Amino acid sequence: MVKFHNFSAGPGILNREVLKQLSESVYNDRELSIAEISHRGSKFVDVMERARGLVKELLDVPEGYSVLFLQGGASMQFLMAPVNLLHKNKRAGYINTGVWSKKAIAEAKNVGDVTVVADSSDKNFNYIPKEYTVPNDLAYLHYTSNNTIFGTQFKRHPESDVFLVSDMSSDIFSREIDVSKHGLIYAGAQKNIGPAGVTLVIVKDELLGDTGRAIPNILNYRKHIDAGSMLNTPSVLAVYTVMLTLEWFKREGGVKVFEHTSEEKANLLYDEIDRNPLFVGNAMREDRSLMNVTFILKDKSVESKFVQLCKEANIVGINGHRLVGGYRASIYNAMTIDSVNVLVEIMRDLEKKC
Amino acid sequence: MVKFHNFSAGPGILNREVLKQLSESVYNDRELSIAEISHRGSKFVDVMERARGLVKELLDVPEGYSVLFLQGGASMQFLMAPVNLLHKNKRAGYINTGVWSKKAIAEAKNVGDVTVVADSSDKNFNYIPKEYTVPNDLAYLHYTSNNTIFGTQFKRHPESDVFLVSDMSSDIFSREIDVSKHGLIYAGAQKNIGPAGVTLVIVKDELLGDTGRAIPNILNYRKHIDAGSMLNTPSVLAVYTVMLTLEWFKREGGVKVFEHTSEEKANLLYDEIDRNPLFVGNAMREDRSLMNVTFILKDKSVESKFVQLCKEANIVGINGHRLVGGYRASIYNAMTIDSVNVLVEIMRDLEKKC
Repeated sequence: MVKFHNFSAGPGILNREVLKQLSESVYNDRELSIAEISHRGSKFVDVMERARGLVKELLDVPEGYSVLFLQGGASMQFLMAPVNLLHKNKRAGYINTGVWSKKAIAEAKNVGDVTVVADSSDKNFNYIPKEYTVPNDLAYLHYTSNNTIFGTQFKRHPESDVFLVSDMSSDIFSREIDVSKHGLIYAGAQKNIGPAGVTLVIVKDELLGDTGRAIPNILNYRKHIDAGSMLNTPSVLAVYTVMLTLEWFKREGGVKVFEHTSEEKANLLYDEIDRNPLFVGNAMREDRSLMNVTFILKDKSVESKFVQLCKEANIVGINGHRLVGGYRASIYNAMTIDSVNVLVEIMRDLEKKC
Repeated sequence: MVKFHNFSAGPGILNREVLKQLSESVYNDRELSIAEISHRGSKFVDVMERARGLVKELLDVPEGYSVLFLQGGASMQFLMAPVNLLHKNKRAGYINTGVWSKKAIAEAKNVGDVTVVADSSDKNFNYIPKEYTVPNDLAYLHYTSNNTIFGTQFKRHPESDVFLVSDMSSDIFSREIDVSKHGLIYAGAQKNIGPAGVTLVIVKDELLGDTGRAIPNILNYRKHIDAGSMLNTPSVLAVYTVMLTLEWFKREGGVKVFEHTSEEKANLLYDEIDRNPLFVGNAMREDRSLMNVTFILKDKSVESKFVQLCKEANIVGINGHRLVGGYRASIYNAMTIDSVNVLVEIMRDLEKKC
């Protein structure tokens, strides 16, 4: 068996046991495949219920919030958030911390009035803005909790008198969060909780109402809630895999345990980046992401050697995004500390060979 | 091994060989799982390209059309069709042949001006309207080619001077079609071509342009085309399974072969419904669907016996939709004639026992 170390930014690494369960449910000799059962049948209705229940349990979601599994990725939420929450007489605030924030801002502008409250584009998004004032007349304040491309992360949610909306695609379930400060949390599954094709949405029911504009049915959170997340046929395979992943989170001890191991894994890598004279980190230290570790090689001439060593060790998905360059090690919940150690060893090995 | 006969309306039966391939790609000892690879990597880029190429080949799609695999189901297309194709100064025409047409109409009305050109609601949608005039000032004429719930089907596309838009979710790839009459064809995968979570879209490029309204990015066909169907992360597992299914269609001889076997399977069932004094078909004979065979038992007192016989034979998913009652046998491409014969035998067996 080939042991890969999958550092892809997303779709990213999934737990081996989860994949084995999924594979078995797709094809076996005893029952219909999970890929060909009706979403209205008791088997999948149970899967959906269990997945939603596990989200509430693992993230300690308060009463008054609904959990949905929708299609369209975070990109669809860039649209649905303002369509459902931005009244035509109000404006929405956004913190711009990178590519995904910018896309969210651009889409919201197709809907209504938007103001950018803070922005870290002046340093190619290598930090999280800290000094800014949130106007208290906003419909909501939107932030991207973790910036997959640039490797920065809000260490805690922004302070705000208006409710928060957060894209948590790349760090949800990696740490404890205070859901109660948020009106809406959304996360494409394909980074930390499952395969591509489903998006987790946690929305506060009482915020949904008249926006002064017609809301198309398929974009309407209220209609999805009323239909139990089955307004249309859900992405069955993806929801099932998310459920298996959440069950695994629970078996491991829940979000608190992953918060601890995320810190442990990230520290291993950042310590090596800081110690090893060949490497330098991309993000400001205090804003470093615990999920996506971005770094560069100071000496370009050793890049091919580093790439070769990674390849020999079956390390995959370590190339940085073109907007940042260098390397990016995504260390989602399913990434083991053993795999991180393999990467650290290679970094040390490279130092010895240079 | 238990042999099931899966007559579910959707998500519905998939080919066993396809499911075996999917299962193996999800978990094996040689390579990364298909569920955890980057959509930007060469492996998945090839999958996407191959799937799009097979659609063009199998459906004989003319030059000037783009093929997309999007998220959100046909329900999202109910919105995207008018958002992209209905100019604010024009109106769109719809033929109302059932639940899915009605949903498409309702969503289009959230976008612009809509006129219902023909309607079969007077007889609970048990037929396809034939006598109607299509105004020639329409932006497009929309029809649902096959009505999963009521068991009716357009035997060929409506005649129209304006271009057609069609929801072919439940009969695409079951017969040859004339794509050139259509500006847009869309189909949720979960009936005839794959698992839930992806929607096939075939759109004529030259029709996309200014509608006089802002088009949100994620709803904009042009942006999806320009991004090669990867504007956002595609539903990887579902697209991969669609590719495997299309490869199987091709190995079997293409759409023409499935058109023949669809007729053969449907005739077997309709002949028994017409012959057997216990049963009666739901749809008007000339409009009977070759994909969803709807029928009722004349004598309610034998229903439990019929259900029991089906259960003993491992027949699943045969209950009719609540709006029609009775039974519905969905006989998509992956359904074998052997399974249809098992059902026919049970219908005969019931007659003998009554």
